[in-house]
Order: sequence, then structure tokens, then C-alpha cells
Amino acid sequence: MLRNDYEGQNCSIASTLELIGERWTLLVIREVFSRRRRFEQMQETLGVARNVLSNRLQRLVDEGILERRPYSERPRRYEYFLTEKGLDLWPTLVTLMHWGDKHASPDAGPPVILVHKGNCGGRVNGRGICQRCGKVLGPREARAVEGPGMSAAPARAA
Amino acid sequence: MLRNDYEGQNCSIASTLELIGERWTLLVIREVFSRRRRFEQMQETLGVARNVLSNRLQRLVDEGILERRPYSERPRRYEYFLTEKGLDLWPTLVTLMHWGDKHASPDAGPPVILVHKGNCGGRVNGRGICQRCGKVLGPREARAVEGPGMSAAPARAA
Repeated sequence: MLRNDYEGQNCSIASTLELIGERWTLLVIREVFSRRRRFEQMQETLGVARNVLSNRLQRLVDEGILERRPYSERPRRYEYFLTEKGLDLWPTLVTLMHWGDKHASPDAGPPVILVHKGNCGGRVNGRGICQRCGKVLGPREARAVEGPGMSAAPARAA
Repeated sequence: MLRNDYEGQNCSIASTLELIGERWTLLVIREVFSRRRRFEQMQETLGVARNVLSNRLQRLVDEGILERRPYSERPRRYEYFLTEKGLDLWPTLVTLMHWGDKHASPDAGPPVILVHKGNCGGRVNGRGICQRCGKVLGPREARAVEGPGMSAAPARAA
């Protein structure tokens, strides 16, 4: 049974959080954006309980946010890809990352920096806009590179 | 004791979710953005258990995201305001709202529409950019107006 805690609220924020607001869900989506598409890879990075990860992936597939494609038949194994609906969550991840960079990142600086793919190479700001050329970017137009805080200790919630 | 579930992840998305990823927290922040500043108002809109609301508000104050100011001395009662750190969550709420409008809103359309305050009055898109004048807006430059889906039944998670 899926809970429906925000029931009765006529609000698109609440509707969105119904679908992606569970603990771990946004990090699972981050994993797929980072091209870690296999259960074992995600489980290793996230350190989440296997049953929780399995449950989150299933729900995201059920909601049409992720798509499952087999990469091995025997044993049967799957990789996960973002649908268009899933790719539409990119601006949300960018805002969360930007806020964390500003308010909760290691002293050394952001662990990850987003840059505009291709010739421009400008840095992407918290609205997903390239700071060099000014283009409002989509998820396929940016890539993540290592930032100065990557090798620092994980940020602690203050 | 605050849990620290995403511990060990050197990621600004995880750091942000440590602070605002708990169930109800983003809706509490939405309440304050919507100028429902008092416990009783929020509790009525959210329908959340009082102890949960109280816990979420306290944590947000502890983290410097909300600020508590007394509006009555006897009995002592408080209103909640967003700090700059809290106002910086506006782009996140805009992306969540936009995604919900697109993927989980009532058939009638979005319950709420954001418009650029003042003379322009243009509609605000999912990146918090005014679609009429092109300005990248901040939280004090937009206001929410009723959308066509406001009086419709609440959106159901598909």
C-alpha cells in the first residue's frame, strides 16, 4: 500500500511530493542521472537497505519516472533509465544541489560542478542556466564534473 | 535525535535533503511562503499531526531556515518567517510546482499560477523566469494567483 499523506491538498507541490517525496527517492533519481543504472551500483553508492531500494525503484517505474530495460537474460538483470517525465526532474535536482552548495557544502567548496556540455563549457547556475552563454539548459545539455569539495569529508548537517 | 540517513555521501543534493527532505518539511516551507505563518493556520491547511508540525517547525528554526517571532505575549504565540536561507528554497518549490502542474495536476489545469509582481504581470515558468519579460526572478518578485484547477478535486497520484 502506498500512503497518500498529502491527500486533500490541491497543490502541485504536494502532488509532486506524493510521487518523489519519499526518503531516498530523489537520491535514486540522482543515481540514474549520474548513469549509475544498476541495482548493485546504486546500492553501493547509497548504502540503503536493499528492500528499500527495490521498493523505490519499483514505484518510480510504476509512476513512469524510470524505465527498466534488461541488460542480461540469465540471470535476468535490469538497468534503469529516466523517461521524459523523469528527465523533467532535472531542474529540481539542480536547485537542491545549488542550495546545498551554498548552505551545506564542505568548506572546500562544492563536491560537484555542473557545466554546459560542448564548446561553451560555462558553469551552470542554480536555475539550470549557463552562466557563460545565458542559455536555459535541459538535462542533456549539462554534465557533472568533480568540484573542489569532492575529496573533502562529507558535509555534515549543521 | 535527528537521523542522518544520507551520511557519508559527499553530495549537495543529499546534504540538502538531510535538512529539508523529511516528510512534511517542504509543505511547511510552502505554508510560510504562502504567508500562513501561524501554527494553527498551518495545521488546518496541512492536516498534519500537531506533534509532527511542531517538530518540523523546531528543526527549521534550529537550521536557520525559519525564524520565529512572537505576535502575542499572553498566551505567548509565534509567527514564522523565512530567513534568507529559507528564501533560497524558492526555486526548489517552483520546480516542484511546475513538475506537478505538468505531470500530476487536475485535468482543469494548475491550481496555482505564479506571476511576476508589479507592472509586468507575466507568468513565471518552472525555472522562476518571467515568460513575458525574461527576468530571472527571486522569491519577492513573484506572487501566486488562483489557477483554473483550484476549485477542482485534488490531484490524485496516478
